[in-house]
Formats: sequence, structure tokens, C-alpha cells
Amino acid sequence: MRILISNDDGIHSPGIFALAEELKKIAEVTVVAPAFEQSAVGHAITMKVPVRVAKYYKNNEFFGYAVDGTPADCVKMGIRNIMEFPPDIVVSGINHGSNTATNVIYSGTVSAAREAAIMDFPAIAVSVTSHDAKEFGYAARVATHFSKLILSKGLNPGTLLNINVPDLPEDRIKGICLTKQGRSKWDDIYEKRLDPYGKDYYWLTGNLIELDHDLSYDQFCIKQDYVSVSPIHFDLTDHEEYSKMASWEIDKIKSV
Amino acid sequence: MRILISNDDGIHSPGIFALAEELKKIAEVTVVAPAFEQSAVGHAITMKVPVRVAKYYKNNEFFGYAVDGTPADCVKMGIRNIMEFPPDIVVSGINHGSNTATNVIYSGTVSAAREAAIMDFPAIAVSVTSHDAKEFGYAARVATHFSKLILSKGLNPGTLLNINVPDLPEDRIKGICLTKQGRSKWDDIYEKRLDPYGKDYYWLTGNLIELDHDLSYDQFCIKQDYVSVSPIHFDLTDHEEYSKMASWEIDKIKSV
Repeated sequence: MRILISNDDGIHSPGIFALAEELKKIAEVTVVAPAFEQSAVGHAITMKVPVRVAKYYKNNEFFGYAVDGTPADCVKMGIRNIMEFPPDIVVSGINHGSNTATNVIYSGTVSAAREAAIMDFPAIAVSVTSHDAKEFGYAARVATHFSKLILSKGLNPGTLLNINVPDLPEDRIKGICLTKQGRSKWDDIYEKRLDPYGKDYYWLTGNLIELDHDLSYDQFCIKQDYVSVSPIHFDLTDHEEYSKMASWEIDKIKSV
Repeated sequence: MRILISNDDGIHSPGIFALAEELKKIAEVTVVAPAFEQSAVGHAITMKVPVRVAKYYKNNEFFGYAVDGTPADCVKMGIRNIMEFPPDIVVSGINHGSNTATNVIYSGTVSAAREAAIMDFPAIAVSVTSHDAKEFGYAARVATHFSKLILSKGLNPGTLLNINVPDLPEDRIKGICLTKQGRSKWDDIYEKRLDPYGKDYYWLTGNLIELDHDLSYDQFCIKQDYVSVSPIHFDLTDHEEYSKMASWEIDKIKSV
């Protein structure tokens, strides 16, 4: 089995290292990850400047390829230019911090897996729910388990699994839930500050408004100490609204 | 009526100027747009560095606010910090180049409108299908027409309209179609070059593989000289796969 691994925290992050170590037990792994942290870049791709690729060594051993681009760039580059044979599955993570609810939209980790899905490869994004997580062993095993499960069960073409693991000792995790993307969202605040030269600048902060109240939503699920597993795709069409809008008869608009 | 306008080509672009001029006929407009071009940034948001805001003047008249951030940043900043009252609708564009099929995923223009949808405001993204477009008058009127239509008909909360207008003289446009996001996608190529110092670098290029063959898909629609109007949302859950995966019984997994 061949697995391509990427992330958005950067190739130096403990999360990707733990993931690669675990996946090496079941597959030949190729790591292609951003040279620098790329959190919250969403599905950005690099088109206006070229990208470069460098070999990255960890503890004097070759670990993978560092790309000075986004997570989506890494997946494209990994599959198109670096891997000799295409991967059986692409795994992105382990992210430091949860990617649930509307955070899925902003996430570089999920976008790396989504880029793989666009390219017709099955994919997983995996995150641990705390930015300060120190322990990735259980999450790495969850990713490994679901990699095998996807290859035996199959997924819709264009679909990936977005997995979030509570940052808790393994024996305190209550189980695994099949979930949907939650509706919780950020109440954004721009904190205004003055620079040393007397000019304004703004930092984005905010509070997550919890809008999910049952275990079928990823955000509620992780709050209740369960692992969440959400199937995600890249068809953004609102099919319900598409049906409703037939009554607008926009094909009959003759002039605007 | 109050309208917030943003884009991804930058506040200096002809497309946003044409859009603002037209929307001023029906509303009080506030323009908050990136100081620099932000194409293909997707739904990136700026969190690791602060953002700044500057007033932008065009022909010696105040035109709007330039933000050194992404399209999604501009919409957050416009609604949270700049506008005194919330907008009735947010319009993003007019983009120079189409945003159909998988390009919707990478698009900063669509992401600005999607950020508005996340914040519970109705929104439109509007693009003209050529990067070299010179004429935006018809597209601006289409955006204006649909702004009024949305406010009279209503949209699902969290839904936006993604509109693409062929870059053709108005009398050659055949009509307007209600569409879904197409399945056409890029066959990416990384062109390898040598820098003046003998080191490799890569440019992302590629060819669009046309996979849409009827007028219900945005990409086919614009190719046939129709305006496409697709309702888009930010729920990425693959509900079909979610139902299928019940048979995986992942809640019964006891150890990994």
C-alpha cells in the first residue's frame, strides 16, 4: 500500500511525525508537507509565484519533502511530481487543533485531503482537538484504522473522511461517532491595537458559538469526548435551494 | 438598502469599480477589498499576523477600504468593524475570470461571498469568464438584478448565488440558467525551471478537463454562452455517504 501524507502545521510538526511513524507499519509512505505553518489558509493554491521543493531530514534521516506552498499545493506536487506511483490513499494531519463545524471551511488540513478527493484519491484529514496536544499515538492509530477501512469498504469518489480526536488519555475517550459538519461558528472580534509608530492594526480573535446539540454533529461529538468521523465532499451546490429556485424562472429573464 | 462589496482581484480592479458604480444606483454601498490581488487564496483567513485597513481613493474620490488580507478577511472586517449598520446583502466581484466547477473551491471571490453566508447574510459572487475582460456593465447589471431578486424571494440561510457571465457582447449572451457546480477539473502540470543560480523551481499550470455536458452545470452553461447562476452553501457534509456509512457501524469499534 502507498500513502501520501501532508498537513498544514508544517513538516516539522510532531503531529505529522507521529502519523508517518504509525502509517509506516502498514504502507510505504511519502511525506510532502509545507515548509512553514499554513493554518487557516483554506484551499489556497500557489499560482502567482513558483514553488520550491526541498528534502527534509529529521534526526539525520530523510523524512520527506518540504514545499514552500500551501497544503493543497503539497498534495498536487506530491502526486504529480514526487511520487513514482499514485497513492492508494492520502492522509492529512495530525493537526494540532480541531477542524469541526465552520472551521472545516478555513482548514488547511482538510483542504489537503479535499485536494486529494478532487484528484479522485480516497483521503482522510485527522486532527487532535487541542493546539497544545502532546500525545498523537491514539489519533495516529485511528487514522491507520480508517485508512484500512476505507480501502476495504470504499468511499464515494470525491469524498474524504474528516476525523477529530479529543485530546484526552485514550481510556477517557468514549467511542467513535459518525457525524455531519456542525453549525457552530465564530463570533469574530477584531482587536484594535496601536503599533510603535502610532498606527492602527487589528488582530482577529473571537469566540466559538456552540450551535450543535446532538452527537450527529462533529463539534458536539468532540465536546462529549467522542471521536468524530464526518464524510466531506467538494460539491458546494445547495441542492435544496437549487430545487426551490426553479420557481424563480430565471431562464425567462429577458433583460436586466 | 445597504450593500457590502468585496472581491479577490484587489480594490484597484476594474471589475469592482464597475460593480460599485452599478450598485450605487439601488443602494448605499461600502467597498472593503484586498489591497493586493488575492486570486486562488480560497477561504484563507489571516490569523498569524495582524491586518491593517487604509482608505482608498480613486480619481481623487473616496472609493472604499483596502485591507492587507484575504477576501474572507475583508468581509469579516467590513461587517464587524467598518460598516455602521449591517448590510442587506454582500456582493463579491466582478471577478476577472470564471469561477465554475472545481474552480469554485479555489476562488477568493466565492469565498468572500461564502464568508458572508457563514455570517448569515445573503450574498452573491459574480465573475466574467475571461481574465482579459474589458467590459463589466452587463455583469454589473446581472448582479444588481439578482441582489433585488434575492431580497424579494429570499435564500436558504447560509446560501449564496455564484454567478458567471460570459465575456461576450450583451446581444450574444443567450440567456440565464439555474445551475449546479460542475465536475470539470484541472489536469495540473508543474512546469520545472532553473533559476539563475541553477536551482529548480516549479510553476503550476494545467488544462481544464471538461466533464460537464448539460446546461444544468455551470461550466457547460458558460461555454454555451449562457449566464450561470448556482446556489452554493458551506455544508460540506456528503449526506449520501453519511447515510451509506451507517452500515460501517463505526460506533461499535472498540479498539484501534
